[in-house]
Amino acid sequence: MKILLIGASGTIGKHLYKSFSKNNEVIPVGRTTGDITADITDIESIKNMYENAKGIDAVVCASGNAYFGMLDTMTEENVYKGIKNKLMGQVNLVLQGQHFLKPGSSITLTTGILSREGIPGGSAISLVNGAVESFVISAAQELFSKGIRLNAISPALVEDSIPVLGAAFPGHYPVSMEKVVFAYSKGVFGNVTGQIIKAED
Amino acid sequence: MKILLIGASGTIGKHLYKSFSKNNEVIPVGRTTGDITADITDIESIKNMYENAKGIDAVVCASGNAYFGMLDTMTEENVYKGIKNKLMGQVNLVLQGQHFLKPGSSITLTTGILSREGIPGGSAISLVNGAVESFVISAAQELFSKGIRLNAISPALVEDSIPVLGAAFPGHYPVSMEKVVFAYSKGVFGNVTGQIIKAED
Repeated sequence: MKILLIGASGTIGKHLYKSFSKNNEVIPVGRTTGDITADITDIESIKNMYENAKGIDAVVCASGNAYFGMLDTMTEENVYKGIKNKLMGQVNLVLQGQHFLKPGSSITLTTGILSREGIPGGSAISLVNGAVESFVISAAQELFSKGIRLNAISPALVEDSIPVLGAAFPGHYPVSMEKVVFAYSKGVFGNVTGQIIKAED
Repeated sequence: MKILLIGASGTIGKHLYKSFSKNNEVIPVGRTTGDITADITDIESIKNMYENAKGIDAVVCASGNAYFGMLDTMTEENVYKGIKNKLMGQVNLVLQGQHFLKPGSSITLTTGILSREGIPGGSAISLVNGAVESFVISAAQELFSKGIRLNAISPALVEDSIPVLGAAFPGHYPVSMEKVVFAYSKGVFGNVTGQIIKAED
């Protein structure tokens, strides 16, 4: 299988790259590194990426960020950071992808546990994760007729993020990177569509 | 109780106005009509609204729209319509409201069944509903310390919308306007916070 992996050098992406590369052709995509460079906040960059990546069977996005900060100082601009990046970046991967991808291919996006749980300072991230998940549920149904599957992986705090993010997630039991890779595998190599695939322990 | 009702002349709003007015002081808010006029897409307009509505115990937003249209012709601009209106309009009601509202007050927002179900052409609406719901789950936790409750009402296709929207919701069993009013009552007069209150039959 030929897999376009956006965010291949990130916390989750590097594990996906290592695992999926064993039996598949994985094309790493990054903003500044990778076989193809692309910026998901730029729709022209997304189009160029798809034009340069012909014949792919799967797109995986393990990239995207949003504002972390307390509600009482949060501004509209703060919220728009994640809307332009993790939310519309991933939505545009679908809106553009539907015109480039062949029947039988799939798109796998990334959300996270904050769609269904709150942490102090997490409201703007929750918003983005919830938006992408509901979009996936609805958009996947319209992609049936094109033979394109669409899912989102919604991981808990991942093991490798404990040093940086652990303190921000009180009481959150981390999920192993192995289990996270399994969740993405279900999206890429399975037959499911329109699913929010949770990766949590 | 003194209730600020945004969208008081809308499909749901007029039922809320009629019911809540029996035993409460309800201030109707609309874009062009109402005791106070406000445009939720304009942050300055939201600030003015709160400044003009002193001493309120509850804010209810029964307003907000998003793009309806098929995925294969959907553009980034289409999606931003709902982001600027039903999504960020309601988020800004919270971000601004937290600085104006007194302890013991509440904010009740409106989402809808498309956060958890798809219909043809509903992806951009799903996105917005899911975003608001996840934001509520997380933001409500931070509003605890201010004594402000925050909930979202997530109605199914409502009875009064059948003539206009019924055909777009195949197989969706409509919910009575009475039951919808009950759901908002739980948000306004109950003690719950951080809840997605479903109104469906």
